[in-house]
Amino acid sequence: MSAESEGENHSAPRLIALDWGTSALRAYLFGDDGAVLESRAESWGIMHLPDGGFAAAFDDVTSDWRDRSPGVPVLASGMIGSAQGWSEAPYCPSPAGADELARALVSAGNGRLLIVPGVVQQGDSPNVMRGEETQIIGALATRPDLADDALFVLPGTHSKWVHVRGARIDQFTTFLTGELFAVLSTGSILGRLARDAGRPPSPEVAADAFTRGVLAARAAPLGLAPLLFSARSMVLTGRLAAEGSLEYLSGLLIGDEVRCGLAGGALPRVLVGEPALCARYLAAFSLFGIDSLPAIADAAPAGLWEIAQHASLK
Amino acid sequence: MSAESEGENHSAPRLIALDWGTSALRAYLFGDDGAVLESRAESWGIMHLPDGGFAAAFDDVTSDWRDRSPGVPVLASGMIGSAQGWSEAPYCPSPAGADELARALVSAGNGRLLIVPGVVQQGDSPNVMRGEETQIIGALATRPDLADDALFVLPGTHSKWVHVRGARIDQFTTFLTGELFAVLSTGSILGRLARDAGRPPSPEVAADAFTRGVLAARAAPLGLAPLLFSARSMVLTGRLAAEGSLEYLSGLLIGDEVRCGLAGGALPRVLVGEPALCARYLAAFSLFGIDSLPAIADAAPAGLWEIAQHASLK
Repeated sequence: MSAESEGENHSAPRLIALDWGTSALRAYLFGDDGAVLESRAESWGIMHLPDGGFAAAFDDVTSDWRDRSPGVPVLASGMIGSAQGWSEAPYCPSPAGADELARALVSAGNGRLLIVPGVVQQGDSPNVMRGEETQIIGALATRPDLADDALFVLPGTHSKWVHVRGARIDQFTTFLTGELFAVLSTGSILGRLARDAGRPPSPEVAADAFTRGVLAARAAPLGLAPLLFSARSMVLTGRLAAEGSLEYLSGLLIGDEVRCGLAGGALPRVLVGEPALCARYLAAFSLFGIDSLPAIADAAPAGLWEIAQHASLK
Repeated sequence: MSAESEGENHSAPRLIALDWGTSALRAYLFGDDGAVLESRAESWGIMHLPDGGFAAAFDDVTSDWRDRSPGVPVLASGMIGSAQGWSEAPYCPSPAGADELARALVSAGNGRLLIVPGVVQQGDSPNVMRGEETQIIGALATRPDLADDALFVLPGTHSKWVHVRGARIDQFTTFLTGELFAVLSTGSILGRLARDAGRPPSPEVAADAFTRGVLAARAAPLGLAPLLFSARSMVLTGRLAAEGSLEYLSGLLIGDEVRCGLAGGALPRVLVGEPALCARYLAAFSLFGIDSLPAIADAAPAGLWEIAQHASLK
């Protein structure tokens, strides 16, 4: 933002970057030194488009920037490149870094923008990501010391645990933690006792219930399946306050993710994601004896800028 | 039913038994030799009652039977005895058999019926059941050889693995398998690829996908968490037909339940539940090398009859 006051040369717009996911569209106007000149956000994720679809959302968010700077390149990442997006950007095989992603950009909207592909891991444990690759490239820009060999954890609807080696996304695993919490708390019997309680838990009850969930998952070598119902039976047997049962469930799910993620033997070096969710994961990690993990928020715009540089967009 | 033709003495109604759960109400009229004289079913589970509530559903289903046999006792089991039911029947502590259940019946509807309590397991792994206790008592009536020491598996929305010892329900575990499948297939991203496929799988594709899901779970010592996303990534990487992905997910969930249930070392001796679901579990068990498990369907009415005998209802 400060770049706006740094004079004509520094503030010349060089890139429009779009972080375009399922539920939101975030747009960034970059100056030629990589500073964000302006940013805006709309709730036009690819499943919540305005009348007129992708093109209308795109024009609404970017047209004044493009009018002011004709020919400025536009680079997008996220679900906009999925089969349900504007144009499908086929997955780039791992290992993939900024160079590999930059070489695999896909044109969309009659050439109005380029889309960063997701990454696919082939082999016995096939896996895919779309959007997280850009966040990781962005996180590496602020933490180049992690490029050589580090485990990144990206909490979210679909959490990713990603080994970065030689500045490339190498092996990764997906946990459905956020989505499991959403469907179980709203659609299953596990949410009913908390709803019937009719009041949110106090901060103390919430923190205690979350901690107990994490510790239960830490102590459960078989995994989640025999544990989930305890979010109900602990309440029915008077061991847990009803209004804390969803915090306990959150602890079970995050605790089980951490237990599984750590089973490979590598220790995570950094969290990348939304601050409130990262705080929840940091609390869980500390119950596994892992403290002082750094957390990086809002890494997508820096990733789009990096990939644009590697693609020599101008 | 055949008892109806066996003469006045045999066909005298002795018990109305109600299997009253969340989604259905099944009613049975028993003769004095334990034969079912008549039966009927309505969709009036406790969450789907007609106008007039519990009493209206009760009257509609039982009033002609009660008119014909004034004073005939009525015994009900299932969620009708939960906090959301007609009258709450407090859980009976394990170990609990027909005698303990019979001593803990709770009166409801101004004395019009008695309700069988559920069972609670106290201690470090608290757990509860409600309805399954009656099915187990009923299954024991047809398989008394299993009363001494046997592991029962009751597949369902909330599957139960129950150790019966000395004809009593002893230790048990709950798996949310059926509910997890329901919420994940309808509410999560894991159901989308199958929906988008727009056609059901062929029997061959379905069986193959289910088998692959069971085998993946069998080979996953950490449990479900890192596996679930494979129901999507296997399709996106061309390893699994989209229309088979929910069968694969079913295999993952049932396979993980079986893996966890067998980890205690005991082998199940019998399945108790709905035939189509039991068939699915039998297919999974056979992939774990366990064949020829007997399956008992519709055990609740026999259980209600047994408990009524132990309570000397007349």
